[in-house]
Amino acid sequence: MTNLLSRYEVVGDWGTSRLRLFRIEQGRVTARHDGPGIAAAAGQAEAAFAATIAPWLEEAAPTEIRLCGMAGARDGWVEAPYADCPADAATWRAAAARFDWRGVPVAIMAGLACTGTTGAPDLMRGEETQIFGAIARDPALGQGRRLIVLPGTHNKWAVVQDGRVTSFRTMPTGELFALLRDRSTLGAPADRPDPAQEAQGFADGLRRAEEEGRLLSSLFAARSMRLRAGRSADWPAGYLSGLLIGSEVAEILATSGLATSGQADDIWLIGDARLSVRYAQALGRRGVPSETLDGDACSLAGLS
Amino acid sequence: MTNLLSRYEVVGDWGTSRLRLFRIEQGRVTARHDGPGIAAAAGQAEAAFAATIAPWLEEAAPTEIRLCGMAGARDGWVEAPYADCPADAATWRAAAARFDWRGVPVAIMAGLACTGTTGAPDLMRGEETQIFGAIARDPALGQGRRLIVLPGTHNKWAVVQDGRVTSFRTMPTGELFALLRDRSTLGAPADRPDPAQEAQGFADGLRRAEEEGRLLSSLFAARSMRLRAGRSADWPAGYLSGLLIGSEVAEILATSGLATSGQADDIWLIGDARLSVRYAQALGRRGVPSETLDGDACSLAGLS
Repeated sequence: MTNLLSRYEVVGDWGTSRLRLFRIEQGRVTARHDGPGIAAAAGQAEAAFAATIAPWLEEAAPTEIRLCGMAGARDGWVEAPYADCPADAATWRAAAARFDWRGVPVAIMAGLACTGTTGAPDLMRGEETQIFGAIARDPALGQGRRLIVLPGTHNKWAVVQDGRVTSFRTMPTGELFALLRDRSTLGAPADRPDPAQEAQGFADGLRRAEEEGRLLSSLFAARSMRLRAGRSADWPAGYLSGLLIGSEVAEILATSGLATSGQADDIWLIGDARLSVRYAQALGRRGVPSETLDGDACSLAGLS
Repeated sequence: MTNLLSRYEVVGDWGTSRLRLFRIEQGRVTARHDGPGIAAAAGQAEAAFAATIAPWLEEAAPTEIRLCGMAGARDGWVEAPYADCPADAATWRAAAARFDWRGVPVAIMAGLACTGTTGAPDLMRGEETQIFGAIARDPALGQGRRLIVLPGTHNKWAVVQDGRVTSFRTMPTGELFALLRDRSTLGAPADRPDPAQEAQGFADGLRRAEEEGRLLSSLFAARSMRLRAGRSADWPAGYLSGLLIGSEVAEILATSGLATSGQADDIWLIGDARLSVRYAQALGRRGVPSETLDGDACSLAGLS
């Protein structure tokens, strides 16, 4: 009886900045531990992993461990390959790196690779798990042509055709936004948060992005509107966010076949809730409806 | 005789990151001292200035001091106003902040302000001195319509009509480039410089920018081409530079009346020689010829 109760699996998403581990018992999450990201654990991934699950190990070893994300990167724990697009869930699962660790079978899930329309290679590690998880949770997503957006530091826009990821595009908009807000002369440290000004800035930035092909010309207003037009220190972050997200959506709609299937309900957002709302707003302004899925739930489904 | 020989003026450009002071005797530069930028001297600008010219002061006081740039910013030495566009040299000179320092007349030159086509204010401090200096050096520049580009951290594209600056636009492309190269996951530290790969990256980036409205979609290739297509660690910096400069030029040519005067010889570049060559290349690929002027010579002429 004790043996049965203590049987558990460990699944997790090990990203650049965070390790998130879930303890799964009889199909349910019963505990969670967070640990350092791959960047902080560089070269000592195994030790960082062991330290993070130590409380669980003291009790009993897991029956299996499955990880996605940067755990499989070259400087991660054990390098996992990239499965080439088009790839379905079976192809992707078969490409995982598998090994034993302290007698426990470990699978580090593969990433996905594709060649963009420009001939440049493109890569993902982690988001594919959410995509295949979303399809596993809602089989309707695996029928027909779907555009799945995974907002984050390096946003992915993926085309799924009948359950296969046929292509995707990485837009490092989140990283660019953080650099501009926190490390440039355009952002401004806010003394006390003013959500109304931030929201106004976001709306102004979105509107600005509707004049396509003016991204570089529009950046400096983040600074000049604060210095000369009375905007508060919260306005620039909102403006930069709206300008970048709006420009990203404009690029996708204007330059790819991604969003031209003619179906109004084919865009799905997976990830951080607050960021997903912003993408939904930007898409909505362009007349494109979207649905939002929970990122953690999709990750867990993909690792099941 | 000694008195005559020791008569001198001090002129200088005090930017965010550097103070550059020139000693002028009988119209010629006879010495130069560099000091800390306004950012480093914050709150103690006067002391930093005094320390920088101390070797000259020991001999004799200057007859006059004229400074441009961030010396006149709110957190500079003494705040100087912005002259509103359209502004000619006389209007601009009259707007300088003037005061006495240890009995020596000081002029801190005004900046320029304008309202962009989008209604957002725009500002410059320092570049206007180079523009009016260029016109002073070559009166032909003060006739007809000219587009003057001042590449730098915050590039300025200024329209000059019959010697008056009628409007300008700030593009923070240089700052964006430095952030992406040095602080993002897209750049890569190069072990040993490989100028050929860097130049190849620049050409690839320029070519990529010719597909307009794809700036965000094209950034990630800086990383993926290195990880998956054998590009060296020097290629991404070149690629990012080419992509950004090419995109900037494309925005200017596509969206403004700036470069549509129909004259082939109306674009003038003032500033850093290496950067000016890159802008000339980007303009050249679009069939737009340009001429390059020496930045220091234009600054000195503007302060004379």
